[in-house]
Amino acid sequence: MNKLTIIKVGGKIVEEPDTLQALLQDFAKIEGFKVLVHGGGRAATLLSNRLGIESQMVDGRRITDAETLKVVTMVYAGLVNKNIVAKLQALGVNALGLTGADLNYMRSEKRPVGEVDYGFVGDVKEVQSSILTNLIELGVVPVLAPLTHDKKGNMLNTNADTIAGETAKALAKYFDVTLMFCFERKGVLSDAGNDDSVIPEITRESFAEYVADGVIQGGMIPKLENAYEAIDAGVKEVIITRADYIFTGGGTKVI
Amino acid sequence: MNKLTIIKVGGKIVEEPDTLQALLQDFAKIEGFKVLVHGGGRAATLLSNRLGIESQMVDGRRITDAETLKVVTMVYAGLVNKNIVAKLQALGVNALGLTGADLNYMRSEKRPVGEVDYGFVGDVKEVQSSILTNLIELGVVPVLAPLTHDKKGNMLNTNADTIAGETAKALAKYFDVTLMFCFERKGVLSDAGNDDSVIPEITRESFAEYVADGVIQGGMIPKLENAYEAIDAGVKEVIITRADYIFTGGGTKVI
Repeated sequence: MNKLTIIKVGGKIVEEPDTLQALLQDFAKIEGFKVLVHGGGRAATLLSNRLGIESQMVDGRRITDAETLKVVTMVYAGLVNKNIVAKLQALGVNALGLTGADLNYMRSEKRPVGEVDYGFVGDVKEVQSSILTNLIELGVVPVLAPLTHDKKGNMLNTNADTIAGETAKALAKYFDVTLMFCFERKGVLSDAGNDDSVIPEITRESFAEYVADGVIQGGMIPKLENAYEAIDAGVKEVIITRADYIFTGGGTKVI
Repeated sequence: MNKLTIIKVGGKIVEEPDTLQALLQDFAKIEGFKVLVHGGGRAATLLSNRLGIESQMVDGRRITDAETLKVVTMVYAGLVNKNIVAKLQALGVNALGLTGADLNYMRSEKRPVGEVDYGFVGDVKEVQSSILTNLIELGVVPVLAPLTHDKKGNMLNTNADTIAGETAKALAKYFDVTLMFCFERKGVLSDAGNDDSVIPEITRESFAEYVADGVIQGGMIPKLENAYEAIDAGVKEVIITRADYIFTGGGTKVI
């Protein structure tokens, strides 16, 4: 099978012109098939503020009311996505911006109201990977915005990590997939206060030990659980690192 | 060659939920290959107003400064485009929203500053139709936003009529193209005050006569000149009519 690299980058990197340009230049150099998944939360918060819409967050997740859904659709699918697509095209990468509604590639269902009503947030139910695979094999580079649809006519807000993970799992049938998550640190750290204490490789066994010992905790636990879910579904490896380290072979490799 | 229908609808129709839904239901029923091109100017003006950005228009064209470019990118490629794509998917149409940057399908150059500085407005220079043709033949229905790019990393604002015309001309190599322009009237009228005075068919000869006699004047003249430009480039027929008449076989046929 051909190699496919899926890179997920957060809002901060893609919203600052200099870091975005550096990232895209590195991304353009990756050999083989590739997919970029982006966030955009900071720009969405900024636009919400300008429009007088309050941004409500619970555990880092945005509560998406009807007005906020319009904001994130404009920011993620419009401003951030097309800015990236245009800049990749300038670098000779044949980018194609997509939400889950486009080509019906990712269908979700509105999250049921539990303790928290997240509003128009979608939990992924189905990924259509055949046309996406055709396009990738034609040399097209999908640029995925963190939005899905319910196939009943509504867009839904979906976490970019989830988009990347679900895409990786669906494409693992057709490619040898490496999934890379960028975040603020160089990798998973053994000492939260020391950015040079990157754990180079985590296995299921060592993961359990790190959690038991309290070395890995908080938001890093679900991130790694998601990584193993992807690996269970056939993804070859998951790499967690900082955006400017992603092309150096550094970071934490989850196998 | 296979038949392809390209329909351009203006902002008013796509921005009102009821007229949009009626249009999309009719559009979904069109047999054969099809493409939808949309505007979105009213929603862009509305968002500009909310953000305190002044909308400047010259002869019906929007002056696009840097802030306005962000607004139209958000509204056209985000809000309006994805709303249409999601609703078409709900109707079983495999829609794919695109700007000219996506797949590099339409490259433009920033309009030179003449008597008027239109700002970030692009004049179309090149249409890449091969991947678009592949997708259409796979059953995908492109939904085109009125935005292009300069292949130097910048999005540019481009009139939706122009997007439709240039797409029609480029795809005429591969399909028997019918190009339909929707506007506020049932067709080209012989009596501006009477909406039932639709001229059913206009030829080059009768067009020249209508203009000489003052029957056709103002903004309708460039619209018809554009239609003949498309026909010269191989488009089979151009139809000008009101959105709710487009599927009735009515309107003005330009041949």
